[in-house]
Amino acid sequence: MIIFNGIKITRVKNVAIMEFSPGHRHNPFSGERMDLLKDSITKIISDEKIGAIILYGGVGKSFSVGGDFNEVSIFRGGKEVEDWIDSVNNVYKRVLQSTKPVIAAIDNYAIGFGLQLALTCDYRIGSDICELKMPEFAMGISCNFGGYMLEKFVNRSVMQSMIFDCEGVKGPEAKTLGLLHEVVDSSALLDRAIFMAKKFASYPALPVKETKYTINREIIAGLDEICALAKQAHCKSFADGAAQHNMCRILKRN
Amino acid sequence: MIIFNGIKITRVKNVAIMEFSPGHRHNPFSGERMDLLKDSITKIISDEKIGAIILYGGVGKSFSVGGDFNEVSIFRGGKEVEDWIDSVNNVYKRVLQSTKPVIAAIDNYAIGFGLQLALTCDYRIGSDICELKMPEFAMGISCNFGGYMLEKFVNRSVMQSMIFDCEGVKGPEAKTLGLLHEVVDSSALLDRAIFMAKKFASYPALPVKETKYTINREIIAGLDEICALAKQAHCKSFADGAAQHNMCRILKRN
Amino acid sequence: MIIFNGIKITRVKNVAIMEFSPGHRHNPFSGERMDLLKDSITKIISDEKIGAIILYGGVGKSFSVGGDFNEVSIFRGGKEVEDWIDSVNNVYKRVLQSTKPVIAAIDNYAIGFGLQLALTCDYRIGSDICELKMPEFAMGISCNFGGYMLEKFVNRSVMQSMIFDCEGVKGPEAKTLGLLHEVVDSSALLDRAIFMAKKFASYPALPVKETKYTINREIIAGLDEICALAKQAHCKSFADGAAQHNMCRILKRN
Repeated sequence: MIIFNGIKITRVKNVAIMEFSPGHRHNPFSGERMDLLKDSITKIISDEKIGAIILYGGVGKSFSVGGDFNEVSIFRGGKEVEDWIDSVNNVYKRVLQSTKPVIAAIDNYAIGFGLQLALTCDYRIGSDICELKMPEFAMGISCNFGGYMLEKFVNRSVMQSMIFDCEGVKGPEAKTLGLLHEVVDSSALLDRAIFMAKKFASYPALPVKETKYTINREIIAGLDEICALAKQAHCKSFADGAAQHNMCRILKRN
Repeated sequence: MIIFNGIKITRVKNVAIMEFSPGHRHNPFSGERMDLLKDSITKIISDEKIGAIILYGGVGKSFSVGGDFNEVSIFRGGKEVEDWIDSVNNVYKRVLQSTKPVIAAIDNYAIGFGLQLALTCDYRIGSDICELKMPEFAMGISCNFGGYMLEKFVNRSVMQSMIFDCEGVKGPEAKTLGLLHEVVDSSALLDRAIFMAKKFASYPALPVKETKYTINREIIAGLDEICALAKQAHCKSFADGAAQHNMCRILKRN
Repeated sequence: MIIFNGIKITRVKNVAIMEFSPGHRHNPFSGERMDLLKDSITKIISDEKIGAIILYGGVGKSFSVGGDFNEVSIFRGGKEVEDWIDSVNNVYKRVLQSTKPVIAAIDNYAIGFGLQLALTCDYRIGSDICELKMPEFAMGISCNFGGYMLEKFVNRSVMQSMIFDCEGVKGPEAKTLGLLHEVVDSSALLDRAIFMAKKFASYPALPVKETKYTINREIIAGLDEICALAKQAHCKSFADGAAQHNMCRILKRN
């Protein structure tokens, strides 16, 4: 086991488990931490001994509750917002560009950026107690990536429910809706993810790489368009001030 | 409450209920009535006091059974067909361009144009007795908008079932298939729609507007392409005469 | 009943049943047999007395287990691979370009090319014992068409499950996932397909033709892009040798 860029990386045979857990139990991501995650993924992808990757929040922790409000709540709608959106987009693209299968092992919460990160993976295993949520509208922020990704990765109906209703979807329902590929007991989550990752890692690398390029290239191109729209939308929203007010309220509550 | 362009408009706090009911109990739409609906929606969207919109067929009435056969059955395949297709397309685009959330509250039938209008909304609540149907092929008319919209808004599998089998889908099954976001008792339909509309209207307007642009822009661009294909298809079909024959038969039966 | 190009063609009123059965009980398809199937479909489409088409594997036989390993296992990554990919793509496009409704009646296995052929049809009826599978990765071959088609015809979530997990999906679950439109008893399969084909054949031909053009044109254009990517991917994979090794192993086992 090593810690690289604040990510705990464990190897089980040719599977790399990338655990976000050295941070907060709910794994919020600042822009800087997103950049570090992206670089860690790049490093693992280029490791020839690794055949598949697991993204994991750590035992008893959330996969990720999204952007770090401590950072976001002081945004003022300028270049800092654009840089943050680039950091977000770069993580999504890096996972989608991975030539190796990537599995999301989701316990507790996957919210906003956390849910979107899970959507970029090839396979999502959730625990029975996990909860997926896209509460941007209730937070007073625009949901460009969330809208685009839920529609393309799941379907428009689920996207509309989640972004307009802003309610969480629990593991078993998330499986029914197509948000998750599997649901298992929380205690069995990591073992199941490792089992599937070993299976995926056993496939010849070349066909997997070629196929992943085919199935992800349109979505990656689309993300760059959404990135530009998200910058416009978020700069306006943060200049407006309502979003920061909501975030400060939530920070005080926790 | 006011009647504007033949639409009954009621305000409940910052929610506007647009009720088609002054017409026939099944709410068929002539081209002229579609244009009036479009203008009413434009008016409501520009009203700063309104935060969300409900489209509704009226108590005990159908959401809409589609185009008015009294008009369509005398089409001859010329410019009158093209104008009618433009009226259809303009309503869809106006709802999709709405900067404010639009909810469809669907009781009894939503057929053809009626179902397509519901699909353009951000959120669809159906009653337990509602029935959604796309019977164009059985009527002898082309189903360009229906095919495109069912595929993009729901999925290809549901689209194929509905346009080829031409059978109705009842409320609970429509929810399972993703055609509806919720199903409630017929008696609770409008109250539930108002409850959700108030929730949507409580979100800051700017992020909702920016997100709606992001998630609807591709579909709006696609509709203009479909509009051109639909004109070609319908002009040929109506010149052929089979569609009018079927419609006259149905008009006599009712 | 006639045999044309190795396909048994039976007419029931204005329905043509195209049965692959003169071959092996699991209906593997060589490139040559794909070309013959394509030409047979062309012939049936141009027959003015035919209103709908059924693709069928024959009583007690598989719809199709995909490419013929006897042929594919001796590929070396050159022009023979490109020709074979063209043959695959040409069948898919021919079915999608059919102006007449095409129904897949699926018993036993529909694997790889077999499943993709079924996906190009307008309506899929499976038997209770049928099994759909996309095992390319486990075979060591790229899954470009499979990835593209499962995502566009069903959804991304089902695509990811099937191509990464490589497990079969049985009839009833395939219906739930949207891979099939109906599931019936194996003994009732052909009768049900004929019943539905007669219904589809009863619709006026012109609107069906115009609508099919509208709903299939984007996917057909996409297939040509995928075809180019598949050629690159398969030439590399077959030059590598792993795929042939797996196929020879399976051929010996059967």
